[in-house]
Amino acid sequence: MELKNDTLLRALLRQPVDRTPVWIMRQAGRYLPEYLKTRAEAGSFMDLCQTPELACEVTLQPLRRFDLDAAIIFSDILTIPDVMGLKLYFVAGEGPKFENPIRSADDIRKLPSPDVNESLGYVMDAISLTRRELDGKVPLIGFSGSPWTLATYMVEGGSSRTFSRTKKLIYQEPEMAHELLGKLANTVTDYLNAQIESGAQAVQIFDTWGGALSAKAYQDFSLQYMAQIVSGLKRENEGRRVPVILFSKGCNTQLEALANTGCDALGVDWTISLNEARARVGERVALQGNLDPAILLADEKVIHREVNETLNSFGQGNGHVFNLGHGITPDVDPDNLTALINAVWELSPSFHS
Amino acid sequence: MELKNDTLLRALLRQPVDRTPVWIMRQAGRYLPEYLKTRAEAGSFMDLCQTPELACEVTLQPLRRFDLDAAIIFSDILTIPDVMGLKLYFVAGEGPKFENPIRSADDIRKLPSPDVNESLGYVMDAISLTRRELDGKVPLIGFSGSPWTLATYMVEGGSSRTFSRTKKLIYQEPEMAHELLGKLANTVTDYLNAQIESGAQAVQIFDTWGGALSAKAYQDFSLQYMAQIVSGLKRENEGRRVPVILFSKGCNTQLEALANTGCDALGVDWTISLNEARARVGERVALQGNLDPAILLADEKVIHREVNETLNSFGQGNGHVFNLGHGITPDVDPDNLTALINAVWELSPSFHS
Repeated sequence: MELKNDTLLRALLRQPVDRTPVWIMRQAGRYLPEYLKTRAEAGSFMDLCQTPELACEVTLQPLRRFDLDAAIIFSDILTIPDVMGLKLYFVAGEGPKFENPIRSADDIRKLPSPDVNESLGYVMDAISLTRRELDGKVPLIGFSGSPWTLATYMVEGGSSRTFSRTKKLIYQEPEMAHELLGKLANTVTDYLNAQIESGAQAVQIFDTWGGALSAKAYQDFSLQYMAQIVSGLKRENEGRRVPVILFSKGCNTQLEALANTGCDALGVDWTISLNEARARVGERVALQGNLDPAILLADEKVIHREVNETLNSFGQGNGHVFNLGHGITPDVDPDNLTALINAVWELSPSFHS
Repeated sequence: MELKNDTLLRALLRQPVDRTPVWIMRQAGRYLPEYLKTRAEAGSFMDLCQTPELACEVTLQPLRRFDLDAAIIFSDILTIPDVMGLKLYFVAGEGPKFENPIRSADDIRKLPSPDVNESLGYVMDAISLTRRELDGKVPLIGFSGSPWTLATYMVEGGSSRTFSRTKKLIYQEPEMAHELLGKLANTVTDYLNAQIESGAQAVQIFDTWGGALSAKAYQDFSLQYMAQIVSGLKRENEGRRVPVILFSKGCNTQLEALANTGCDALGVDWTISLNEARARVGERVALQGNLDPAILLADEKVIHREVNETLNSFGQGNGHVFNLGHGITPDVDPDNLTALINAVWELSPSFHS
């Protein structure tokens, strides 16, 4: 099963490519009618995640429509806390919730270390199946939430705006916070390694809520655990390097520190220019991003102009993966994503001459 | 009416002080039982804003409890769109709403330019009254929302997570966005000048949602309008310089550009260390901030340690105003704010020796 399009993997390792590869965070998602159809047939969102054939199907859907350079396995970042016994469920319009959120130091001490190949076997099965179905067309990306981001959901019991409970934990009981984050870091490492062994050809860690932390707390409670995971990952599989991408939203003041974790690439949100981000990380890592997802609400002409702007901001040379600065939103017309991807294919070769 | 404590004004102008002044964003707010009592008696939130005696009362309440170096007039950032005809109202648990949000280019063209002394006379009356009541104890700060931040509420019709409508406006119809923002910049300038003439001794512009914009869009659609306002403000009154503070949350990649607007000080959120922020803005402006508001959920010992950390991060010398990195939250025990303010009084003199 030879990989026919390795543009993404080469760009993540800052190797020469003849155009900028493109994939889109949440590319298998609610903006696609075929996704909504499969999801409705699946029953619940968790049924969709836990049925390998269905997870594979929605993973492949965006690749049938768009000239994407990668697939990303369909799953949820909260599968880990779910199998640690917190029991994930979804309430329409309210986002994820846990039946058993963390409410005490004792809850943290009692958290089990799950055998991910067993309890999250459905993710590994979905990855194996998707690799077979992809047949080497493009690489498959695996992913996990970061320990800090997982901890916020586990302690708050769901989404939050202020993260009061989790912040109180790190400031008032830092040793308990570190116990929780350490357990999560070990499980995330196992989880990503199992994904790699099942066929994931690159992995991304989503630190969605890193931006809620102060500069110092970020280093202590998020960054160091991501660095620990990076150093514990299997970086070579099937005779190829497996690139690791860190995406820490709202953490642009931390780019240098993130680049020093040993990862291969950084996801960048849209609040910093790629030009500035590139100057700050230098030759250490590739950059992935960073179009404002809201650009996809405008028309084709605006999208074309803004794609050009983003490519220009990164400038000539290797080490750029085109993506949005966050996930695509449900209100986007899929034809606008076609316009974006066409623009990347049309405009990017001149940045690699 | 001599000003007995000018520590805040001196620090904002980077003049020598013998300790670091402290005030707290949203210091007159829901964490105070006396505020909740006055608010309940007032009827609606808007009644509280629009009755000068009540606005004065809640402005003064935190000064009775805490050794603060400033009062900030109690009001809401959305008073401007309200008097432009959008009609502000509040739904419990849902935040601010407008009866007549902006829904078309025509709505923007028809927006009136209010005479702020007339339509927002209640704010000016509250300022005059509060100045009399303060009797020179500490300076009084006036404020406004930034044009971009006001525009998001006006176009979305209330709060938003993605700012889809406002983003679509700036990307798809930039000339209409500029017409809206230009009108708002003129009105904000008038509004802040009227506040200064009524007795505000410093003014702050809150760009709460600046961080939602891309680096380039931020410069075009938020920063330039704040710079225009700064250059149109009356900077001298009652024989004293009136300092101007810009607070752009989530915009730490823009600190240099913000420092170049001609303002006197920048509010800084907690996601960047004051040390780094100071290195980046140099001698151009003072810095205000930047403790994570969640620190106030921890105990006195933690608060003391983190206040010390913040003072240390800024380091020796002038040009620091102690504050949180965002507004105080309703779940804070007022005694914890006492602990914070005591710690600033105790620890800060050694940074000014």
